[in-house]
Amino acid sequence: MRDANTGCGGTPDHRVVVTEVGMRDGLQAIARTMHTDDKKRWIDASYAAGVRHMEVASFVPAKLLPQMADAEAVIAHALTCPGLVVTALAPNLKGVQRAIDSGVHRIVVPISVSEAHSLANVRKTPRDMIDAFAEMCAMAAGRAQMIAGLSTVFGCTLQGDVPQDDVAALARQAVAAGADVVALGDTTGQATPRQVGEIVEKVRAVAQGKLRSLHFHDTRGLGLVNTLVGLQHGIREFDASLAGLGGCPHAPGATGNVNAEDLVFMLHSMAFETGIDLDALIAVRAVLAAALPGEPLYGYLARAGLPSHMRPSPAGAAMNAAGTQASVSS
Amino acid sequence: MRDANTGCGGTPDHRVVVTEVGMRDGLQAIARTMHTDDKKRWIDASYAAGVRHMEVASFVPAKLLPQMADAEAVIAHALTCPGLVVTALAPNLKGVQRAIDSGVHRIVVPISVSEAHSLANVRKTPRDMIDAFAEMCAMAAGRAQMIAGLSTVFGCTLQGDVPQDDVAALARQAVAAGADVVALGDTTGQATPRQVGEIVEKVRAVAQGKLRSLHFHDTRGLGLVNTLVGLQHGIREFDASLAGLGGCPHAPGATGNVNAEDLVFMLHSMAFETGIDLDALIAVRAVLAAALPGEPLYGYLARAGLPSHMRPSPAGAAMNAAGTQASVSS
Repeated sequence: MRDANTGCGGTPDHRVVVTEVGMRDGLQAIARTMHTDDKKRWIDASYAAGVRHMEVASFVPAKLLPQMADAEAVIAHALTCPGLVVTALAPNLKGVQRAIDSGVHRIVVPISVSEAHSLANVRKTPRDMIDAFAEMCAMAAGRAQMIAGLSTVFGCTLQGDVPQDDVAALARQAVAAGADVVALGDTTGQATPRQVGEIVEKVRAVAQGKLRSLHFHDTRGLGLVNTLVGLQHGIREFDASLAGLGGCPHAPGATGNVNAEDLVFMLHSMAFETGIDLDALIAVRAVLAAALPGEPLYGYLARAGLPSHMRPSPAGAAMNAAGTQASVSS
Repeated sequence: MRDANTGCGGTPDHRVVVTEVGMRDGLQAIARTMHTDDKKRWIDASYAAGVRHMEVASFVPAKLLPQMADAEAVIAHALTCPGLVVTALAPNLKGVQRAIDSGVHRIVVPISVSEAHSLANVRKTPRDMIDAFAEMCAMAAGRAQMIAGLSTVFGCTLQGDVPQDDVAALARQAVAAGADVVALGDTTGQATPRQVGEIVEKVRAVAQGKLRSLHFHDTRGLGLVNTLVGLQHGIREFDASLAGLGGCPHAPGATGNVNAEDLVFMLHSMAFETGIDLDALIAVRAVLAAALPGEPLYGYLARAGLPSHMRPSPAGAAMNAAGTQASVSS
């Protein structure tokens, strides 16, 4: 058996891209609006920690999402960081035009597989969204990379079950429409590990190397499990949010993104390289805490610390509560 | 690539044993002592939900662990449940004698791989524990199944790194001493996925089919990830605690067991059979809540519910907060 690092048959590629999406998906899910200067501080601190992919804004009407009203200013700042790949979300032609004008490198267009969710989210059927996406791709050609962000891929709270064949069909249409990248999103936090493997293989069969990225929420505690399955099936790009911003994983219906620190910890423990300094990434939580006082910050690693076998030197004297509580236990 | 259900090279065995260890590992980790009648109610409710393996008590001095002072009474009750496999922990000869006399089916003896932890936990070196374990096995022969519960297998808060070769050596000694089963315990919540695969293979090389069971804590959010790797490496027995009793996964040094409901959910989502009714298992949390008012009950699934693709019928009208929050997102 091959080890879990390379997966069963995946490419032995040890480099993984972690895209920080907290500035977009995290911030849009909380009620408060983060000040533009705080967003810039967050971007700078994440960049200093080694994060080289960030989704920093969404081009939607400020009336709908006031948290994203400063998209252009935030992107302009992010573009000053050398080597930072800057992504924005845009759900329609007008948004894509704004995104192109802003100079972002990558534009994510959400395309729901679930018709019910698509109508609720963008007032278009998936088929109509594909037609619009084709126009967006033509508009962006040579100016920005277009990502078809397939959403409700693993289930929909409106429609219920989402057939895997529908996912594959939409992925094929997105590629035909001009997608540079296909990303699969667990919008509603319903993905399960076996399903992830099945859907990744079905979509790869139609999208080949354009299937690049997975976006999980941790609603049911399987965010990292699903990530592991994605890794084993050859995926090397994952979205995550610092401190799991944007949703309490312990509340009903919560939709927090996979926690970035916990994800990077898991990846490093498996000898994957992310280019991210984990201690520095954890320190970025202080920027969030200062910018959003009282907002809950989630995450296991930030509280428990690295295990001894991942610390530079064995902590012989570092007896802590865990050691004490473990007494007379198996 | 084979799917994640059967693993890369494991036996295509769809039956998984989930051992509820909350009555032992969970209860010994909280300050309060659960009333014997409440323990009986918990056992009965879990049994009614289909749980057929429980670790219900520990034979240690009542002075050290007053929570376990009623071990004999609890075991006597558990033994009235037809088909229930009843396990107790015993750290020494006296404890094993009491366990044998109580009539339990299986006795777990904790044997630390870390010398520092072993000395702190049972005042014996690992080598001395193996000698004692050999005596215990001779004593129990034909009367109870003896489980060598190797602990601090994945790291130790006292010693630091625990060499994998030490784990394999101790497993070999435990088998030679008469172990019927070898179980690997992540006592300090430090296990990482790649490490789990490596250690399982190393121990299997010396213990073969006697390596049966894994015991994870969820201290760093990898409890279910490590379980998935165990499954992929052919392990089909896992310990867990209802509601993750015994430790807050979000507090420093916490050592909560893997949450039983979340584990069963993951297993069922992968088409593994546990014999457990998930709704009934979640309902058992009410027994815990009544017996330990104010004690935090953890778990993702109990709060978020089953995803739509695992519910009997698509919940067309069940739009909830997750659906709403997902708007204009990937």
